Amino acid sequence: MKAFMDKDFILSNDVAKKLYFDYAANMPVLDYHCHINQKEIWEDRRFDNITQVWLGGDHYKWRFMRSCGVEERYITGDASDKEKFMKWAECLGKAIGNPLFHWSHLELRKYFGYQGVLNKNTAEEVWELCNKKLAEPSMSVRNIIKNSGVTLICTTDDPVDDLECHKKIAEDETFNVQVLPAWRPDKAMNLEKPNYLDYLATLEKVSGVKIDSFASLCKALSVRMDFFAERGCRVSDHGIEYVYYAPASAEEVEAIFEKRRNGQTVNRQEEIRFKTAYLLFMGREYAKRNWVMQLHYGCKRDNNTLRFEQLGPDTGYDCINNYAPAAEITDYLNALNCTNELPKTILYSLNPNDNQTIGSILGCFQDSTAVAKIQQGSAWWFNDHKTGMQDQMISLANLGNLSGFVGMLTDSRSFLSYTRHDYFRRILCNLLGTWVENGEFPEDYEILGEIVRGISYNNAVKYFGFDLKTVE
Amino acid sequence: MKAFMDKDFILSNDVAKKLYFDYAANMPVLDYHCHINQKEIWEDRRFDNITQVWLGGDHYKWRFMRSCGVEERYITGDASDKEKFMKWAECLGKAIGNPLFHWSHLELRKYFGYQGVLNKNTAEEVWELCNKKLAEPSMSVRNIIKNSGVTLICTTDDPVDDLECHKKIAEDETFNVQVLPAWRPDKAMNLEKPNYLDYLATLEKVSGVKIDSFASLCKALSVRMDFFAERGCRVSDHGIEYVYYAPASAEEVEAIFEKRRNGQTVNRQEEIRFKTAYLLFMGREYAKRNWVMQLHYGCKRDNNTLRFEQLGPDTGYDCINNYAPAAEITDYLNALNCTNELPKTILYSLNPNDNQTIGSILGCFQDSTAVAKIQQGSAWWFNDHKTGMQDQMISLANLGNLSGFVGMLTDSRSFLSYTRHDYFRRILCNLLGTWVENGEFPEDYEILGEIVRGISYNNAVKYFGFDLKTVE
Amino acid sequence: MKAFMDKDFILSNDVAKKLYFDYAANMPVLDYHCHINQKEIWEDRRFDNITQVWLGGDHYKWRFMRSCGVEERYITGDASDKEKFMKWAECLGKAIGNPLFHWSHLELRKYFGYQGVLNKNTAEEVWELCNKKLAEPSMSVRNIIKNSGVTLICTTDDPVDDLECHKKIAEDETFNVQVLPAWRPDKAMNLEKPNYLDYLATLEKVSGVKIDSFASLCKALSVRMDFFAERGCRVSDHGIEYVYYAPASAEEVEAIFEKRRNGQTVNRQEEIRFKTAYLLFMGREYAKRNWVMQLHYGCKRDNNTLRFEQLGPDTGYDCINNYAPAAEITDYLNALNCTNELPKTILYSLNPNDNQTIGSILGCFQDSTAVAKIQQGSAWWFNDHKTGMQDQMISLANLGNLSGFVGMLTDSRSFLSYTRHDYFRRILCNLLGTWVENGEFPEDYEILGEIVRGISYNNAVKYFGFDLKTVE
Repeated sequence: MKAFMDKDFILSNDVAKKLYFDYAANMPVLDYHCHINQKEIWEDRRFDNITQVWLGGDHYKWRFMRSCGVEERYITGDASDKEKFMKWAECLGKAIGNPLFHWSHLELRKYFGYQGVLNKNTAEEVWELCNKKLAEPSMSVRNIIKNSGVTLICTTDDPVDDLECHKKIAEDETFNVQVLPAWRPDKAMNLEKPNYLDYLATLEKVSGVKIDSFASLCKALSVRMDFFAERGCRVSDHGIEYVYYAPASAEEVEAIFEKRRNGQTVNRQEEIRFKTAYLLFMGREYAKRNWVMQLHYGCKRDNNTLRFEQLGPDTGYDCINNYAPAAEITDYLNALNCTNELPKTILYSLNPNDNQTIGSILGCFQDSTAVAKIQQGSAWWFNDHKTGMQDQMISLANLGNLSGFVGMLTDSRSFLSYTRHDYFRRILCNLLGTWVENGEFPEDYEILGEIVRGISYNNAVKYFGFDLKTVE
Repeated sequence: MKAFMDKDFILSNDVAKKLYFDYAANMPVLDYHCHINQKEIWEDRRFDNITQVWLGGDHYKWRFMRSCGVEERYITGDASDKEKFMKWAECLGKAIGNPLFHWSHLELRKYFGYQGVLNKNTAEEVWELCNKKLAEPSMSVRNIIKNSGVTLICTTDDPVDDLECHKKIAEDETFNVQVLPAWRPDKAMNLEKPNYLDYLATLEKVSGVKIDSFASLCKALSVRMDFFAERGCRVSDHGIEYVYYAPASAEEVEAIFEKRRNGQTVNRQEEIRFKTAYLLFMGREYAKRNWVMQLHYGCKRDNNTLRFEQLGPDTGYDCINNYAPAAEITDYLNALNCTNELPKTILYSLNPNDNQTIGSILGCFQDSTAVAKIQQGSAWWFNDHKTGMQDQMISLANLGNLSGFVGMLTDSRSFLSYTRHDYFRRILCNLLGTWVENGEFPEDYEILGEIVRGISYNNAVKYFGFDLKTVE
Repeated sequence: MKAFMDKDFILSNDVAKKLYFDYAANMPVLDYHCHINQKEIWEDRRFDNITQVWLGGDHYKWRFMRSCGVEERYITGDASDKEKFMKWAECLGKAIGNPLFHWSHLELRKYFGYQGVLNKNTAEEVWELCNKKLAEPSMSVRNIIKNSGVTLICTTDDPVDDLECHKKIAEDETFNVQVLPAWRPDKAMNLEKPNYLDYLATLEKVSGVKIDSFASLCKALSVRMDFFAERGCRVSDHGIEYVYYAPASAEEVEAIFEKRRNGQTVNRQEEIRFKTAYLLFMGREYAKRNWVMQLHYGCKRDNNTLRFEQLGPDTGYDCINNYAPAAEITDYLNALNCTNELPKTILYSLNPNDNQTIGSILGCFQDSTAVAKIQQGSAWWFNDHKTGMQDQMISLANLGNLSGFVGMLTDSRSFLSYTRHDYFRRILCNLLGTWVENGEFPEDYEILGEIVRGISYNNAVKYFGFDLKTVE
């Protein structure tokens, strides 16, 4: 029997171990997509206790606690931090097969030096140990980032954001990790939302462009993209229901936008047409600027109205959707490609059933402007576990060029989540190692090492074009 | 090589074996969903031969025989019982990889003490052996149930059923297994069926409520639910194409119902609106009564018209459907939840592609009224095999709280199917054991044992609230 | 560690090895579906170099090269054959986990006696070795076929084709491999295509039937089917988006056809109705002639307009689609079955998510006119790899009669692809062997050997009814 989560965790054979320890473990971390708060980096935030770090905003953990029948007051309510932690520990102890079990123990081992098991019996001990450790200077946000080997972080930012923290962090010579903005312009697209006109007003103000047409909305966004580019942005991100493709004439789009500006409601067909036009505009802008376009889709959000009204969005009430027509994805990419305006693109579906469809779509739009120009993003959110990562990589390998994969990101709201890169690398090395052990690929460490280092770090450096050196 | 289906069947490592033999094997069986005939329990039916037990109504076996090119007369036709068995044995011998091979041999081992392999060469021997055994008193229906460790059975019953057998069994002090009704009110919902008005007439008579509106239909059903509750019912079941959600006003629903009552045909849109209203009413009633709502969907039934006209329903001509919008499931559950009227709910899709979607939907509606209040049902019907069960449990573990899972049921029309619980428990223990062997969960038998006993039996006791004791 | 791709490739245990070497390896090859050019067989084509064989028309390889960022001139452009090969070798060296890696090395081992690894370092050596080998008479098309143990090949032919090569090959006593036509009547169905009327004109001429109605189109096709039958055809093939079922009256269908004949455009609804009528007619004709109907669906073709205009179809720009309603498949099969006109049918979906749906549909239409009358085709195109084949066979075994499966085909445009049968048989034997090793099926070589020989060859002989002997 393998020992529980020791240094060889996930690594089931000798080749896997060699790949991990000799090629993967010491690679830096390039976290090109996350949801952490740059202000906390700038301020070098400290944490009073482990509940703040772990349970302050982590809806994965909240969902699990609810699945265990825990009362909401111990989750998002007014229970004390210690009470919340005790409840969490009790739940975690039973979380067999759930990635939270692995993530949490990887974090306990890496950041807190705890080699035991967290459950109701050890909760008190772990509470003490973690809080003591958090009091040390090494556990400030900046030190966590540095000690995690991170070279670059992309946050997630709205076109109206001032990116002041990014600027100040860049100018601070005491902290040499790049913290760059990523362009997430969903609010400017979601014209069905009640507060859309308020958003336009803000954008108008921030951009200095009067927004009285779709064309001028595009202009305003373009101004903001220039600003983001000045702050080092090279990557965008869209959170969409599915990849829309309902083309309409410029006049139609203007009419829809005008209707909305006049305070009217647009119907579903108008909404989709508008969003199609919006995404086409965006894609072309990215191509022009050589930015990477990330499309996250396949999610149905805020399904529990009762809780949404109490807690707001991103509180653990989203699910996987199963409506995402392959035809619209290809039509959208094709429309951009027809005029040579298809940017580097990463497709992330929340539905793992889409793996093979995506894998086969990639191949329709690859060309020599980049290695693996169109990518399938790493297993995301509900798929961010051993099964999900393996399935995504096996599918990608079967259908395309795994060796060109840009690999893992944290997608995280927590500063301890860099261990997910470690988790991913172990799963990657175990997969490749197993193929070699089974005689399905040669034991040639020149090639294997290049592939592992590529997927762990180097591919992302080259693909995004960041100002970073690859590590050979 | 492991021996063929010996005591360690499915159990591939030491932890798996320990979990199975020390924690799972001797747990009682709580069969909360099946299709056996309570009349046969009451009458303590005996069987003349193994064909009666195995091939009398088992459409799984019929389908397999048809796949082998066997003539229908040996399946549902006028061939003798022995001829049918001989054909079946010949087919089974080639059924590599099919769950029928495992189910049949588990039954041969458990109930008939036969350790060999059934195929064309051994058919004669097995025919003799089984029939001899069936002549023993231990093989009466009641004795089979008792010797299988069953503590409680939920049959499947229509609102108009008189539940007389349930009453008589309950009053019979010589038989202490609880046999309770389950509420399956599909016929009162399916207004598109030609004989719907006849059904309403029967319901009217049985309930004593004049049904001249949707409101009075609801009233009649409510009366019958009270009656079911008196007989110990705590669980409902719906067989639906997919989880509908097309809300309509009370007036619209009454108009649709009135149209149908007048003998007119309702269109598809009206049908879905009516069914939505019906399911909303039902869900609220379950919440009020603290019953569990089971939703079985994803099936397309009676696809072979030629055979349907000859043989009727449930004869092996159904298939998996691939239309089941995630959005409607969440909208339906949300509608109930908005008014705090969402009952404990178990979702079963016949399409294994829905595993992850369901797993993520569960998490949107969990709360502290029950551990794992919203459940994904165990792998069902076409998925009731090693692959299907493993995939369902891995998905559930990845996305939710496996430790709270209410586990297996037989869904059976045969009294020998209790071995499916054994099959399930072996697969469960092997899965957990493998995780432990791989160092992915600690070898802590206090927790592992609690989880195994929970999923095998105790969780169901607590979740459904039956009058049973958990086994520690 | 297993050696890289040695004689035991894929075979992970002793039973698997025994099944492969004693029962599978030496079975002949019946290639009932491929896209090779019969003219090249008739002319006994020779190849100047390995690029001609490997990269001349293989869009799988082209796609992979594009995924590696290779310029199009090295793929389909004007680079020299050697330059193309060198680029290909460099890409292949990194193709970890991709079936191209296995396919290519199986071909190198079987046809070129090369036991090494092809990558950028060995490219020169392999180029020399292959070209030298290709100069030998044993590497003519006919000799490759003979040395591959092929007994019968079905090409893919249009109703208007003259089948001259088939006739000449059949009459050539020096070559005793059967090369038969397969009926692929897509062009006569696709009335939405701009050149449809030109096609009708050709069909009119070739058939001698004036086509001025749908009825006369059917007549013309029937005449051509008689001609195909004379040339030994016993199998059809359709490439469709999905299995349509939108029935219409004969008058409606005639009106749609008339509209198109008059040069008008038909709308989507009319198109689907016409295609439904067409496929119903075809199915009935196959039933009458005892031909096998193959339905290939789930593909979205020609997604990259820019490249389509440069390179035409079948150049690597197709993908998996995710629209294929199960309901229409069953309705279509049921419509044929209602009048006892359902032919033997093989369903192939390009979307692996359809495995279980298809597996359950098969069982609805099996009868005693053939063993496994309705089949799920072997893993196709984007699924033609270890994962895809395993998943298809596990699903088929779980849901139906794996032992009756007609097994592998090449679907190939290359004469070296017969190694895919070897690949398939290894995967098959490993799967069955693993079940036996795990104690899930008895180690009974009488039955196992019959199953392996059946799936490798004998089942196809019997199912299609070719003039071939089974091998016991």
